[in-house]
Amino acid sequence: MPTLVLIRHGQSSWNLENRFTGWWDVDVTEKGAEEARAAGRLMAEKGLDFDQCYTSFQTRAIKTLNLALEEMGRLWLPVEKDWRLNERHYGGLTGLNKAETAAKHGDDQVKIWRRSFDIPPPVLEAGSAFDLSADRRYDGIAIPSTESLKDTIARVLPYWEATIAPDLKAGKRVLISAHGNSLRALVKHLSNIPDDEITHLEIPTGQPIVYELADDLSAIDRYYLSER
Amino acid sequence: MPTLVLIRHGQSSWNLENRFTGWWDVDVTEKGAEEARAAGRLMAEKGLDFDQCYTSFQTRAIKTLNLALEEMGRLWLPVEKDWRLNERHYGGLTGLNKAETAAKHGDDQVKIWRRSFDIPPPVLEAGSAFDLSADRRYDGIAIPSTESLKDTIARVLPYWEATIAPDLKAGKRVLISAHGNSLRALVKHLSNIPDDEITHLEIPTGQPIVYELADDLSAIDRYYLSER
Repeated sequence: MPTLVLIRHGQSSWNLENRFTGWWDVDVTEKGAEEARAAGRLMAEKGLDFDQCYTSFQTRAIKTLNLALEEMGRLWLPVEKDWRLNERHYGGLTGLNKAETAAKHGDDQVKIWRRSFDIPPPVLEAGSAFDLSADRRYDGIAIPSTESLKDTIARVLPYWEATIAPDLKAGKRVLISAHGNSLRALVKHLSNIPDDEITHLEIPTGQPIVYELADDLSAIDRYYLSER
Repeated sequence: MPTLVLIRHGQSSWNLENRFTGWWDVDVTEKGAEEARAAGRLMAEKGLDFDQCYTSFQTRAIKTLNLALEEMGRLWLPVEKDWRLNERHYGGLTGLNKAETAAKHGDDQVKIWRRSFDIPPPVLEAGSAFDLSADRRYDGIAIPSTESLKDTIARVLPYWEATIAPDLKAGKRVLISAHGNSLRALVKHLSNIPDDEITHLEIPTGQPIVYELADDLSAIDRYYLSER
């Protein structure tokens, strides 16, 4: 049976400050690092093991993966990093905390951006402090200026289909360390969650989510490893 | 000009205890971790940057790489891990400290094993506490039972030729985090060091070694980054 485990990065410094982060590359906090280590210990205790790992281009997801793998004695596993597993790009909201955003745009508008499936926030202005166009990690990549969850899904799923799904079909056990919205994209796809429900599905930090999959990669079961 | 940087892992717990380590998977010490971070900071300060990283299947080299990359803000770089960059396999000496080895085999014999180019130590007995045949990281690999430096070179260089050299020829800047003897293999090859000299070349832990290479990958210069 193909095994897939998803893990959202441990608490980041901007999770803690309640700021929209998106593609901005903030680190995990010490609590977040400990969440990652605890996830690794839990996976080892429960007998989970992997053949291939995937993560984003963002430090908080990569470090979460590295810390978990270290606890499992599995730092040697192959890891592929790809920008398509990055967090949703929050456009002009990047860097704002939730209170600042509400003061600037109004509570109702913020709720729409956070909870709607296909309405993106305003674009990130070129030259903003959070403009990533000079970051060489994204050379050759059309960096979005903002994304709805629908937009995020539209770049996560082709990567899933082209790269991750073939590994699972080949019998590899796969671990993905990524972000709230890139993981929502995968959960929506695998668990057939409707557009108006997926934006309400919270993915907690540092909690391994296990998918038991049929050979065609349809989901048989999905659960938090900590609850088994 | 192709850029290649070699770094030997930071101090490991068995470096500290003066024990033959080889393929046994010991961790870096806190001092070794700090050596790795300092190497990353130094490389960033000196303006070095990379496109592709290589390391072994061994925790101490992988962690050294990860810690250095983190300091450089380059955790997102692609990393390929391969057993052919592992440390020399010390066979039946694995786990012995230098005093135990001398008491068991005599000082002269130990010097021969440490300093000869092509005389391997006694083989590691099957079922030894340090037998790695049940370690799934080496599934499908003919784990050596012992190696001379010549044997180590014989598995490092084909990997260099097939995988690393083409990256350099394609213009990629390459960082390799590995071990005293797998790095000796590369230095011997690149700097044309004779058999009887290479075993005396000490490669310090955590010190980035820079190679400036011609387009055909012949060495123009080799230096410790800390000395420039």
